[in-house]
Amino acid sequence: MRVLSGIQPSGRLHLGNYLGMMKRMIEYQESSTLFAFLVNLHALTTVTDGEFLRKSTLEAAADFLALGLDPEKSIFWVQSDVPEVTELSWYLSNHTPMGLLERCHSFKDKVARGVSANHGLFAYPVLMTADILLYQANIVPVGKDQKQHVEVARDIAIKFNNAYGDVFALPEPEIEKDLATVLGIDGQKMSKSYDNTIEIFADEKALKKKVMSIVTDSTPLEEPKDPDKDNVFAIYRLFATPEQTEEMRQKYISGGYGYGHAKKDLYELLLEHFRPHRAERERLLADETHIRKVLKDGAEKARAEAEITIRKVREAVGINY
Amino acid sequence: MRVLSGIQPSGRLHLGNYLGMMKRMIEYQESSTLFAFLVNLHALTTVTDGEFLRKSTLEAAADFLALGLDPEKSIFWVQSDVPEVTELSWYLSNHTPMGLLERCHSFKDKVARGVSANHGLFAYPVLMTADILLYQANIVPVGKDQKQHVEVARDIAIKFNNAYGDVFALPEPEIEKDLATVLGIDGQKMSKSYDNTIEIFADEKALKKKVMSIVTDSTPLEEPKDPDKDNVFAIYRLFATPEQTEEMRQKYISGGYGYGHAKKDLYELLLEHFRPHRAERERLLADETHIRKVLKDGAEKARAEAEITIRKVREAVGINY
Repeated sequence: MRVLSGIQPSGRLHLGNYLGMMKRMIEYQESSTLFAFLVNLHALTTVTDGEFLRKSTLEAAADFLALGLDPEKSIFWVQSDVPEVTELSWYLSNHTPMGLLERCHSFKDKVARGVSANHGLFAYPVLMTADILLYQANIVPVGKDQKQHVEVARDIAIKFNNAYGDVFALPEPEIEKDLATVLGIDGQKMSKSYDNTIEIFADEKALKKKVMSIVTDSTPLEEPKDPDKDNVFAIYRLFATPEQTEEMRQKYISGGYGYGHAKKDLYELLLEHFRPHRAERERLLADETHIRKVLKDGAEKARAEAEITIRKVREAVGINY
Repeated sequence: MRVLSGIQPSGRLHLGNYLGMMKRMIEYQESSTLFAFLVNLHALTTVTDGEFLRKSTLEAAADFLALGLDPEKSIFWVQSDVPEVTELSWYLSNHTPMGLLERCHSFKDKVARGVSANHGLFAYPVLMTADILLYQANIVPVGKDQKQHVEVARDIAIKFNNAYGDVFALPEPEIEKDLATVLGIDGQKMSKSYDNTIEIFADEKALKKKVMSIVTDSTPLEEPKDPDKDNVFAIYRLFATPEQTEEMRQKYISGGYGYGHAKKDLYELLLEHFRPHRAERERLLADETHIRKVLKDGAEKARAEAEITIRKVREAVGINY
């Protein structure tokens, strides 16, 4: 079973990213053939600062590796290192009805949010389809917002296969149903777009500041509090052991335990939870040459897989003469 | 001065193609650095028969070479042999406003004619822009119908340069003003879409049949005819010497010279005019390995140029990490 998943290297990893996608991806390396990659080509739809993208790519790689992605157990690379994906994207475009792209929520939403409507945004799902089909992925774990894109990929694969024979495996989206929505410091879904994120690898001072600014109600310190209505507790339980969770629950119910105390406990838990990963990330980022080598080795493995598909496609469409 | 021009290998060369574009392209090899290529990737917007495209690509190459394109004096290759063009296309997409593509007549016209609206057709001008900018072309000779696409290329180049500095030369379309419109056998503009073409390299029987079916008026054989209102004469003069043209004009005016005679003279003129090219084309097509070698050598030269540009672009957008 081939599982494929990409993450945009366009910002700092936050708790929502980690629990929503990265943790799950890393777990797949134990059970499946995992294709994990950093989608820097897709990032170009919103990032126009080259220096920032270069830096973010290396940092995202360090994040992944520090959090446990094992390049021996998976294929881990940077999207642009297999340029065949843009070639495939062109072939697929010729079997992509305009209506399919026009119906994509993601494009419509971004335009509605004021992101300027460029062709890259519109063609985003075709490039994503190429990512998926190039590696003949069977399973694509996604959040709800990306489910439609995997369905688009499946539709395009069917259209192409109808025209040329069975060239592509048909991918399936996989939505984890039990996934808790991680709330941001303002109580909305944690998302870069809402500016309410808690970055996993922020320095200790910045992390503390973020945690201390989580919005709570105004119940006084001495009074009992409802843990199930509080956002500090909601985040705490995502990382705590059952015992730690129960202990904090009791403190909430008993009273005499303020939100300030809870936030301090959450801060310390996060620091403790990610301590080995923080150290590993620092170690990795001190040797960028090593990160590059890991990524280039991964790209070689990815490219070998891509070659098999792209040769079939070239033969099918007739551009090899 | 870099002149760039591509021809779709999606059908048989007709007199309109030849006089409208190919002859002009071949002339450029004497005065400029000519980038001449067969746009098989673009052909995919309408061709879904792989075998046909493969065959057409080799035949189009033979057409070009037989008609005088000199691969020593120009850079002559097949578009897909430099896959960097699709990579560049993606980078450019992120600087292409949707409105720019939505305004393209060519897409709107094709959809109006019933070609199914797929994303390849819509994105066609972005790939064409990538063709032009990848080779830093200054001049792009085009017919009136393609002028807008070169303007789109210029607009995208300006937008990209504004974002990242002067990466691309700004291309200019070049429309030959004195170009006679070549009329088809039905008196409309000669075009594959109207099914009214005269193929240069049709076999003699087919060529004769086409010429004999040119539509004329019903003036009887013995009466004088107005050469300037007749389509046989219009095509004849495009290939005849001034003396031959004058001679035929006199025959028209004098009467006793029927359209059947004129068509026979036209047929013989075409046969005579393209005789050496027909022989050369046959010779070329008997050795496909040689054609492939010429094209692969050309692709190597083209790719060396493409590399220079794509490296600059990768550095600018930040996908090299």
